Amino acid sequence: MGNTFGKLFSITTWGESHGPALGVVIDGCPPGLPLQVTDIQSALDRRRPGQSSITSPRAEADQVEILSGVFEGRTLGTPIGLLIRNRDARPADYAALQQVFRPGHADFTYAAKYGANLPSGGGRASARETVARVAAGAIAAKCLKLGAGVDVIAYVEAVHTLEMQRLEGFLPTREAIEATPIRCPDIVMAGKMIAAIEAAKTQGDSVGGIILCDIRGLPIGLGSPVFDRLEADLAKAMLSIPSTKGFEVGEGFAAARRLGSENNDVFENLGEAISFKTNHAGGVLGGLSTGAPVQFRVAFKPPSTIAKLQATVDRSGAPVTFSGTGRLDPCVLPRAVPIVEAMAALVVLDHYMLHSAHIKAFNF
Amino acid sequence: MGNTFGKLFSITTWGESHGPALGVVIDGCPPGLPLQVTDIQSALDRRRPGQSSITSPRAEADQVEILSGVFEGRTLGTPIGLLIRNRDARPADYAALQQVFRPGHADFTYAAKYGANLPSGGGRASARETVARVAAGAIAAKCLKLGAGVDVIAYVEAVHTLEMQRLEGFLPTREAIEATPIRCPDIVMAGKMIAAIEAAKTQGDSVGGIILCDIRGLPIGLGSPVFDRLEADLAKAMLSIPSTKGFEVGEGFAAARRLGSENNDVFENLGEAISFKTNHAGGVLGGLSTGAPVQFRVAFKPPSTIAKLQATVDRSGAPVTFSGTGRLDPCVLPRAVPIVEAMAALVVLDHYMLHSAHIKAFNF
Amino acid sequence: MGNTFGKLFSITTWGESHGPALGVVIDGCPPGLPLQVTDIQSALDRRRPGQSSITSPRAEADQVEILSGVFEGRTLGTPIGLLIRNRDARPADYAALQQVFRPGHADFTYAAKYGANLPSGGGRASARETVARVAAGAIAAKCLKLGAGVDVIAYVEAVHTLEMQRLEGFLPTREAIEATPIRCPDIVMAGKMIAAIEAAKTQGDSVGGIILCDIRGLPIGLGSPVFDRLEADLAKAMLSIPSTKGFEVGEGFAAARRLGSENNDVFENLGEAISFKTNHAGGVLGGLSTGAPVQFRVAFKPPSTIAKLQATVDRSGAPVTFSGTGRLDPCVLPRAVPIVEAMAALVVLDHYMLHSAHIKAFNF
Amino acid sequence: MGNTFGKLFSITTWGESHGPALGVVIDGCPPGLPLQVTDIQSALDRRRPGQSSITSPRAEADQVEILSGVFEGRTLGTPIGLLIRNRDARPADYAALQQVFRPGHADFTYAAKYGANLPSGGGRASARETVARVAAGAIAAKCLKLGAGVDVIAYVEAVHTLEMQRLEGFLPTREAIEATPIRCPDIVMAGKMIAAIEAAKTQGDSVGGIILCDIRGLPIGLGSPVFDRLEADLAKAMLSIPSTKGFEVGEGFAAARRLGSENNDVFENLGEAISFKTNHAGGVLGGLSTGAPVQFRVAFKPPSTIAKLQATVDRSGAPVTFSGTGRLDPCVLPRAVPIVEAMAALVVLDHYMLHSAHIKAFNF
Repeated sequence: MGNTFGKLFSITTWGESHGPALGVVIDGCPPGLPLQVTDIQSALDRRRPGQSSITSPRAEADQVEILSGVFEGRTLGTPIGLLIRNRDARPADYAALQQVFRPGHADFTYAAKYGANLPSGGGRASARETVARVAAGAIAAKCLKLGAGVDVIAYVEAVHTLEMQRLEGFLPTREAIEATPIRCPDIVMAGKMIAAIEAAKTQGDSVGGIILCDIRGLPIGLGSPVFDRLEADLAKAMLSIPSTKGFEVGEGFAAARRLGSENNDVFENLGEAISFKTNHAGGVLGGLSTGAPVQFRVAFKPPSTIAKLQATVDRSGAPVTFSGTGRLDPCVLPRAVPIVEAMAALVVLDHYMLHSAHIKAFNF
Repeated sequence: MGNTFGKLFSITTWGESHGPALGVVIDGCPPGLPLQVTDIQSALDRRRPGQSSITSPRAEADQVEILSGVFEGRTLGTPIGLLIRNRDARPADYAALQQVFRPGHADFTYAAKYGANLPSGGGRASARETVARVAAGAIAAKCLKLGAGVDVIAYVEAVHTLEMQRLEGFLPTREAIEATPIRCPDIVMAGKMIAAIEAAKTQGDSVGGIILCDIRGLPIGLGSPVFDRLEADLAKAMLSIPSTKGFEVGEGFAAARRLGSENNDVFENLGEAISFKTNHAGGVLGGLSTGAPVQFRVAFKPPSTIAKLQATVDRSGAPVTFSGTGRLDPCVLPRAVPIVEAMAALVVLDHYMLHSAHIKAFNF
Repeated sequence: MGNTFGKLFSITTWGESHGPALGVVIDGCPPGLPLQVTDIQSALDRRRPGQSSITSPRAEADQVEILSGVFEGRTLGTPIGLLIRNRDARPADYAALQQVFRPGHADFTYAAKYGANLPSGGGRASARETVARVAAGAIAAKCLKLGAGVDVIAYVEAVHTLEMQRLEGFLPTREAIEATPIRCPDIVMAGKMIAAIEAAKTQGDSVGGIILCDIRGLPIGLGSPVFDRLEADLAKAMLSIPSTKGFEVGEGFAAARRLGSENNDVFENLGEAISFKTNHAGGVLGGLSTGAPVQFRVAFKPPSTIAKLQATVDRSGAPVTFSGTGRLDPCVLPRAVPIVEAMAALVVLDHYMLHSAHIKAFNF
Repeated sequence: MGNTFGKLFSITTWGESHGPALGVVIDGCPPGLPLQVTDIQSALDRRRPGQSSITSPRAEADQVEILSGVFEGRTLGTPIGLLIRNRDARPADYAALQQVFRPGHADFTYAAKYGANLPSGGGRASARETVARVAAGAIAAKCLKLGAGVDVIAYVEAVHTLEMQRLEGFLPTREAIEATPIRCPDIVMAGKMIAAIEAAKTQGDSVGGIILCDIRGLPIGLGSPVFDRLEADLAKAMLSIPSTKGFEVGEGFAAARRLGSENNDVFENLGEAISFKTNHAGGVLGGLSTGAPVQFRVAFKPPSTIAKLQATVDRSGAPVTFSGTGRLDPCVLPRAVPIVEAMAALVVLDHYMLHSAHIKAFNF
């Protein structure tokens, strides 16, 4: 269960890391959206392994096939079926691991739940599953951009103990973000981050970090009060990404250490429309978008599979040691940027459609 | 929209802060659960205003009526309708505010979305709505305790800049938590927190803080991989609570600053069962419970309504000043503890039931 | 479970026939809809018992209270909480029945499922539950009428073996339908039907019948292909009404006995728009509305509770006899007309909102 | 929208009749279920075109590929991705039809809704979509059989004006049903039905009919009261099948013409358990299964595409004539039998899992 996301723009992903293919069905995409394979492929290329020296060398081209829902460059309004074949699946490698509970991995919990005869459900717990999310998110992002003028842009703000300075109102371009393989728009900091990742890799270790996501162009009022607040749905979306451990919107945890008089965003009227002098709230009030940029951060843990030798147990409970080999990511952050963007686009588009249904459809 | 939460144990809340009553319908409660009004009332009493000098003096007894679903002290399996009347609603007070966009409140976003003729939808954005969640959560908690041996316990870990020391494996009793009105089990720190809250109140200001929630007794394997991970659903639940700005599970944001070799929890076998030497993960791996305590933190901003004079605008966009008067909470943390527990219990019970349906129902 | 209906315009009902009250929460009603208590009450008055000599004499005024979601005659966009108190609940009467499995009633299946200590879950299986649906449906109907120009009109077409002649294109007025207590617009047939009902009543028996529902003013294209076809959602809605045993759209079962060349509706173009010469399809093609009236029929069984002595068993399995006494409906048809209309309005409004979200929200 | 069905055992279908492939994702299948490709293929073989002289000659082998969710003959508990390639898609044939609104087809409604540039969304409205349902239903049926001892068996009861005699308690074997290409277990009637279909085909016409479905081995109490009644969910499932126009459970429309004293099923106790002397109810009371066989009928219209010349209009509204050519089904009934079974199995398994979650998971 739990392989479907979204209420109106709804995606269902399938496929194991160790199987022949992965895919996604997108249900609810409006008809008439211009869509080419390249719209999806360019997002996948930002996520795929082997894109730089600081990512896993698994050799996956991640070529996407559109099997339904698109005809002559336009969506039909029918479900869009996407397929991505695994080219470098090595089930034999993993079969060897079958008896070991790798530290930090889901082998243990999957075995308890599914009694499954492959580690982590054949790799369903692997971040490889996110290839399907990125493919679907690329369609959502295009729909948002063309249909609503909304942009979703994420970047790496921190790696291990290295953190970019936070500047109010800062919004880098996609080009500045893509300028370095770490996807941090501060070029000096990017260099330090890459060095830190390579150092960790050399030591057989891994590092975590933080991604900031910025959503611009939202109309005021997207979201639902009470349970389906915009930030609540974003929080769920982010914590559903493998390796994530935290989410905060606006000032987030820092707001907990502030006074009300410091934290409130003062309204102002610069002649055209009511806006805010600051954006401590991160673009949401009462669960609804304020018109200011929606900004949130996501914390990623360091990858669990490391070359360093670790103590663990096997399925019988006997102590063994384990050392990750092969296709390791010393830091998931650069590849997680398009994943964060994809999930954010899915949430926002869903709320855009809900808003259309409840508010814009009627004129009493 | 968005007033229903939960897939199998599902609650729907209704009612405005400025209206005659609030309520909740609980659908999916198993039949035969022993249930008395006092089970619910005792949770509401921990949330209600006026319980101490550091909470709002709004005079609400918050007496709950059970209108359906329970007969002779047992649930029937039919929907449970609960009603809580507003005794101290003062719509006239709020009518006066109708023209002002209060800083940090949802007046502005509600007006944009709903064109509503009352501030924040008549108080639907008010934390008063959470009375219904606490009532429903009390039933979920009882069901979890009797049906599955699960305990959900939350407490205040930080207020403004004051933070309890984090001790691995620390689990206070409910009594220790309830010993002070701030619901921090460190009695020395509790005194400092209360003083800080009273100081803020005296200055016409407010403070935020952090709540830690600890869930014990979960079987291994609760949760769903991919989108409906246990921590993802908890994150959504927590960010759906008014005034929350952040969520982290286990080490959370701190994990982003750690090495993989530091962060992985090493398995061990102490003779009875496989367990973990540490719990940096916070009791979840791959979206599933590990059997270790599920631990997460929630960041709350300082309340937006403060007595200090603030600049803002009215609905026409003209600059005005605003000063909150009357029934203010200088800090929501003590009253938020039962709200966090309620939402956590709802999430966990839902996953317990999903697990029963998918895994325990079959024996191939 | 199963007490919520609708995806975007969503209702959740609660309350037992033998308890203090019933109610419904409507979530997703657009803001700004003009709404008075009388809009709801007039629908309830058409459903309530005691309205004529051919309905149950249970003395229920069925006065509805609006507890939330409406302010100064307009909906707020927040959930609408409605409450209807039971005035003539006689749990003692039913307590006496607790040991008997009444033929045709849900006592037996409820006991197996819920082990419940009241017959049929305290009356949750009773058609009294539909009071909440009619209240919610009245709001949906008003929203459809004002927001989309759609009318939903049902009437009694058959009682026992008496059946109105089916006339292509016939659409009676609400006034013609309401002219007799049986709600059959053919005044001669109405007289015969009433006589048949009274004869059955005199003999301690009951009769079934058929309701026809006609939905006019729908735009072309409402509905979803594949699973959520307009007629599929109508079928579910109708079979969810107590005592219903069949549903058919357009020619329905008669279409099974026709040739394709007879059954196809030929398109024509009368100068303004493309339309159909006939409407055998009942206003739907491929799960979507065609612009022609959506017409369907619902079969109701004769009420199970009759004064005639029937053989049955008690909870221990011992043979006993049972004779219904008191407040019996010899025929549910006249009171079921507003229930059918309510459920139809809920389905159609939901699809109208879905259509707005998927199709009308974008302009690529 | 509307391409997902089921709450806990949930399927999502995709693919156009004129595209490269169709498929389905099954989410929520329990782990450990023994599953071979042949389990699915044998169901598909009963649905595929070209299986006999009375079905469409479209040359589709309908070979299914399992792309995920199964390993070494057992389900993993992860989503099952199935793929069926179209071998005989002839989009060019349909492109020629693009300008004509075929009578009885969804071209008109699809064009209005989707503005789609292919007839009926590239064939998404085609019954070819049901290949995915049958594949998923075969898995549900196996899960029901092995996990719960439930059998779902359907057969053709009527074709055009030819109808089998209804015998109380009659339950044919799968072998008797499969003995003739029409799937009617009355071998004499089967011969007449086949002759009628061939006569219609010769005249360039088509015929409708009725399928009866019988579900045995259900525990008492499956289903939910109020909206998600077992029969309501079955009704929706059946009306979601292309060409269906009616659904009835038990006596169905005939019950509308009966007296209560005739229609009630009298309980009896034959020493082992409480049962029913008759089954007019069709195995459901109050929305819950009674333990008696669940029996329902589905009415299918005659196929719309016929060789006979029909008047219609083109997309500009100009009158044209249309004559179906090529791969026509003169009667969908024999191929619809496995579709009805598939949808029924999906509904029943979902309710079985819901029942497990709500009732069997707790022991207070």
